[in-house]
Amino acid sequence: MQKLTIAVDAMGGDVGPHVTVPAVAQALNYYPHLHVTLIGDKHFINSLLIEHQISQHPRLEFVHSSQVVSANDKPITALRSRKQSSMRLALDLVHQQQADACVSAGNTGALMAMAKVVLKLLPGIERPALVTHLPEENGQGSLLLDLGANSSCDSEVLMQFAVMGASLAESVWGLTKPRVALLNIGEEQIKGNDVVKQTAQLLENSSAINYIGFVEGNQIFSGKADVIVCDGFVGNIALKTAEGVSQLILAKLKKQFDVNWFARFILKLFLPSLKSQLKQLNPDQYNGASLLGLRGIVIKSHGHADEKAFLQAIHQAVAEIQQQVPGRITDKLESLLIDKH
Amino acid sequence: MQKLTIAVDAMGGDVGPHVTVPAVAQALNYYPHLHVTLIGDKHFINSLLIEHQISQHPRLEFVHSSQVVSANDKPITALRSRKQSSMRLALDLVHQQQADACVSAGNTGALMAMAKVVLKLLPGIERPALVTHLPEENGQGSLLLDLGANSSCDSEVLMQFAVMGASLAESVWGLTKPRVALLNIGEEQIKGNDVVKQTAQLLENSSAINYIGFVEGNQIFSGKADVIVCDGFVGNIALKTAEGVSQLILAKLKKQFDVNWFARFILKLFLPSLKSQLKQLNPDQYNGASLLGLRGIVIKSHGHADEKAFLQAIHQAVAEIQQQVPGRITDKLESLLIDKH
Repeated sequence: MQKLTIAVDAMGGDVGPHVTVPAVAQALNYYPHLHVTLIGDKHFINSLLIEHQISQHPRLEFVHSSQVVSANDKPITALRSRKQSSMRLALDLVHQQQADACVSAGNTGALMAMAKVVLKLLPGIERPALVTHLPEENGQGSLLLDLGANSSCDSEVLMQFAVMGASLAESVWGLTKPRVALLNIGEEQIKGNDVVKQTAQLLENSSAINYIGFVEGNQIFSGKADVIVCDGFVGNIALKTAEGVSQLILAKLKKQFDVNWFARFILKLFLPSLKSQLKQLNPDQYNGASLLGLRGIVIKSHGHADEKAFLQAIHQAVAEIQQQVPGRITDKLESLLIDKH
Repeated sequence: MQKLTIAVDAMGGDVGPHVTVPAVAQALNYYPHLHVTLIGDKHFINSLLIEHQISQHPRLEFVHSSQVVSANDKPITALRSRKQSSMRLALDLVHQQQADACVSAGNTGALMAMAKVVLKLLPGIERPALVTHLPEENGQGSLLLDLGANSSCDSEVLMQFAVMGASLAESVWGLTKPRVALLNIGEEQIKGNDVVKQTAQLLENSSAINYIGFVEGNQIFSGKADVIVCDGFVGNIALKTAEGVSQLILAKLKKQFDVNWFARFILKLFLPSLKSQLKQLNPDQYNGASLLGLRGIVIKSHGHADEKAFLQAIHQAVAEIQQQVPGRITDKLESLLIDKH
């Protein structure tokens, strides 16, 4: 197997090195050919490297950086004044081809803005998109994009999202003709706003995409489509609404079983496996949203990811390197252009 | 108490008279001053009136109509070719002031188009909005609008939605200063698309509305706001996503308890009250979406509402008549105009 190098922003996320360092230690253990360049503040990290027994690891390189991008930094601030931050240095390593991918749990807006400037967009892509994996009852689930990188999009941009989503589904899941759908407020052709209708037209006329039509909000978790395309405003609202409902239901369940000693006993008995079932709905389980459309691989972990979830983001990075996702997107875009001519 | 008259479209919905007739029988029983005009096909309805012992009810009037609006009728078809339908006749009765409100479980698009043409919009309102009640863990929940009447809206229209939502919260819940929020992809001022930002500006400058800022998708069910405003595309996606997640979780729960005889026994023991807890998340529990902004009261019931849910829609109609919701919206719009000058 070829050598793989991932640059990890050690300082990103709510917990920072206390999550990223042990996750990296696990990843090094799991992948015998993985090299990691860890970027962060040595004052926080050195003792953690020792604690997790990777301070002398032959496949770990450590780069000190005392600057961090904070959760409140605006994208423009991050771009102008965080050029020595752990996040920026991780992206720089990908740009300089010293790393094949980078992983960060830091500020999403800043990561997207920096990635766009440092790595540049793939030819034919106007906007990057944030994509994540949604679970479903039976089967592999669906990819949903965009999740908030672009709060309004025209039909050409949505078309590019379809191409990027299909490329990811093909490469990471090995699907030959992933089913691509548009998120809409009805299944009939007359439903939706102008942008969605125009995008449907573009997708119908394309032989490069296996377009299956519209899906509604209640079908996001049904596995009806492999790739679901929408603008970042709608995608963000859908994903966060799902999160809110899950929390409300869990609260209701707990209340339900809090009526008498017998019920509480039952809950104690079943709660662990119940939680593990519900965890499949937890975004952390599918942690590792990809920032697609760039000349390089960038994986965004949730800010509140724990060690296991951050490791999941590293797995996603490894899979995308092995499947050469950016190259596949470019190939698919080219076949679309051939369609047009 | 004053005399109340509600026109009920007996034929609307997946089940039609088998749901609407018994619900009407219950409503007549519940409200001693309620008069109902029931419109539908006598061949289906006569025997049901006898079965539910309301064929000779002194406060029930029956109007025969053999035409129905089907679920597949386009709004334009409904407008042009369904002028004798039970839905249209129910709206006509409101327009002719022979009924104070109408309730239908029929085709939403057709109902909205017909209501707009028959009843006309209130002065100062550009578009009607569909609003529903969302549950939350503790407390009365929130009103969410629009739910699909308008797939794209400018800031003036969203502002009118805020006024209509606040008026409804004041009148039906008796709140003096309902907290109004905009649904957005972040809580910070810089987040969101141009329309949302412009609407925020309008709301901040208005003394007639108690504007509290942005809420995100995961806060829809948190009770943080009494009224949550968004365009119909986003509102529809959010509501249907919530429905999809609830279904997925219920399926997972059932699976969870399907491991051995003991677990199945426990599930049997707890399922009824568990379902009743989860039912609070069921839109039917809060059935009766109001179509606001019209010169008359129109309540849309879910197409798949059962008897209890359809009765809920009648309750909503009664409450809106008693609180004179359209008049309150007009008053609030006027105080907004005073704001401007």
